[in-house]
Amino acid sequence: MASPSSTQTQSRSPEIRKDPVNNRWVIFSPARAKRPTDFKAKSPQNPNSSSSCPFCIGNEHECAPEIFRVPPDPKSDWKIRVIQNLYPALSRDIGSKKDGGPDGEMRCTGDLGRVVTGFGFHDVVIESPVHSVQLQDLEPREVGEVLLACKKRIEQIKEYDLIKYVQVFKNHGASAGASMSHSHSQLLALPVIPPTISARINSTKEYFDQTGKCCLCEVQPKDLQIDVTTHFISIVPFAATFPFEIWIIPRNHSSHFHELDNEKAVDLGGLLKLTLRKISVQLNNPPFNFMIQTAPLQAIDTQLAYIHWFLQIVPQLAGVGGFEIGTGCYINPVFSEDAAKVMREVNVPK
Amino acid sequence: MASPSSTQTQSRSPEIRKDPVNNRWVIFSPARAKRPTDFKAKSPQNPNSSSSCPFCIGNEHECAPEIFRVPPDPKSDWKIRVIQNLYPALSRDIGSKKDGGPDGEMRCTGDLGRVVTGFGFHDVVIESPVHSVQLQDLEPREVGEVLLACKKRIEQIKEYDLIKYVQVFKNHGASAGASMSHSHSQLLALPVIPPTISARINSTKEYFDQTGKCCLCEVQPKDLQIDVTTHFISIVPFAATFPFEIWIIPRNHSSHFHELDNEKAVDLGGLLKLTLRKISVQLNNPPFNFMIQTAPLQAIDTQLAYIHWFLQIVPQLAGVGGFEIGTGCYINPVFSEDAAKVMREVNVPK
Repeated sequence: MASPSSTQTQSRSPEIRKDPVNNRWVIFSPARAKRPTDFKAKSPQNPNSSSSCPFCIGNEHECAPEIFRVPPDPKSDWKIRVIQNLYPALSRDIGSKKDGGPDGEMRCTGDLGRVVTGFGFHDVVIESPVHSVQLQDLEPREVGEVLLACKKRIEQIKEYDLIKYVQVFKNHGASAGASMSHSHSQLLALPVIPPTISARINSTKEYFDQTGKCCLCEVQPKDLQIDVTTHFISIVPFAATFPFEIWIIPRNHSSHFHELDNEKAVDLGGLLKLTLRKISVQLNNPPFNFMIQTAPLQAIDTQLAYIHWFLQIVPQLAGVGGFEIGTGCYINPVFSEDAAKVMREVNVPK
Repeated sequence: MASPSSTQTQSRSPEIRKDPVNNRWVIFSPARAKRPTDFKAKSPQNPNSSSSCPFCIGNEHECAPEIFRVPPDPKSDWKIRVIQNLYPALSRDIGSKKDGGPDGEMRCTGDLGRVVTGFGFHDVVIESPVHSVQLQDLEPREVGEVLLACKKRIEQIKEYDLIKYVQVFKNHGASAGASMSHSHSQLLALPVIPPTISARINSTKEYFDQTGKCCLCEVQPKDLQIDVTTHFISIVPFAATFPFEIWIIPRNHSSHFHELDNEKAVDLGGLLKLTLRKISVQLNNPPFNFMIQTAPLQAIDTQLAYIHWFLQIVPQLAGVGGFEIGTGCYINPVFSEDAAKVMREVNVPK
């Protein structure tokens, strides 16, 4: 076996690499690594308990630096904290971008592939000071405040011209990628537009070019609808990639999540809470992910007509196997209209 | 909650749907479904034991129909069986394609999206008659025979003009998607070219147009190499999507996996066996997937110049979270050259 000391990579900067075969960007992030020789198959994880949780109120000194808190007064108790990720996937040291050339320009590595230096931000939104409180336990107004904290952080990051896209996401449960059980979301601000976002924009542009309409503004058929509020609708998308995948979509056209105002944040907070509770009741509190699918920060006006942001929720009910990894094609055992009907009819206890 | 009887979908045919937002094909496969209301978060699975295993010798009557066996004599004991999947993701009833129009043509569902009827083949290759024998336990010649059985099945399927691509894959371990612990691989023959394959072909074409060369024929840099045999090389790709992802590549240009001849099959069998044993020793017998990345069945001559088949192995060491689902961008904590060094130096016991 390799000697443990021979492969240490602790001091390297993150890199974003693209290879010529898959045309896919990969972030190499040694800050998140054990030594390569320490990698083993994962064993079942025990979620951390509140006694050792750096996200709990009183343990702030165990965290990476705070960016801001809600309410902002540093002397009062906080309800939400936005902090740096202690194990960031990207380096927030803007100096490190010099390796990558101006504006995240790619450098060639022979004929091998392409590299962008891994400049970016990786932040954490702690959604509650209390360990046992989950996002769905908060009041709609409080869920709205979490969403507004994400909005505020995006507006700060938007000042960096090098950042092209901010992905807001939440991992709930160890098998959905959460390493901390204390309720939190994350933001990853990237110097490239990721492939799923480019594909989404190209696809909605094609629809717009053919019909003159934004495909997410179109009236959603009744059999895919779950719930409707003043400003939002929840649906199972027609070609849901995963069983019980749900999208929450603004009813009026809006390209950027960070256009969310206070009134809409409360309305969305209520629908997100309801949807997460329905998932928990119907599907037995599964691990889940949600992702905010929004427009690139520097999207131009002509693009905004066909980019419509939405919140995508994916319960983790089935593993991903070789077919999905190999083809990018997914197998969904539940027709979308059947999943929508089930979710419409779930009774959530008051 | 929905009444259990209200959402039964048992009698529906599979559909392949594409929606206008993600431009992604999803196979809806009710044959693989429990009732929608029965879906719950998965609990840890107990691999089936040999006493109840339909893949074991003597239990052939519990399986879906056999397609062929090796050796072919139905009266002698078999070493390999190729059978239909009892829960196929696609329907092998060619009559069902009539709903989808000729040649898998898409039908429009209003402005909603597109549907192809789910015609195709989903087969299983049982790699050994004995429950406890894993692929890596076989002799190189025997691993080669498994690969040649896949080749033979592809050559049979190739006769159907409607089939555009055959994905060969293996899921090992429950968290890698294996529902049966008895060693097996699968083939899924599709009436569409899946998105990952299209992206790969477009990407290698771009490289070919710029350089006049096939990017997988290029000499692989020493620091990414693991092992070399007469006809194959194993590497960690420059921009490996997953930690310790490994590709086994034919050293001479070859577009279709099913061009494999008997001599190369034994050589590949030996390298695949060695690589799986290295993964097992170094990474503590992790769940893994492998996928054969090949050319579409009807690829034309000009395409063949830049399509080079390879076998992709992915140990499942880290879960996929919201960032990866949302962006299609992956975070790899181990630089490719470090993973290759570790794998070069693993000592596999004789």
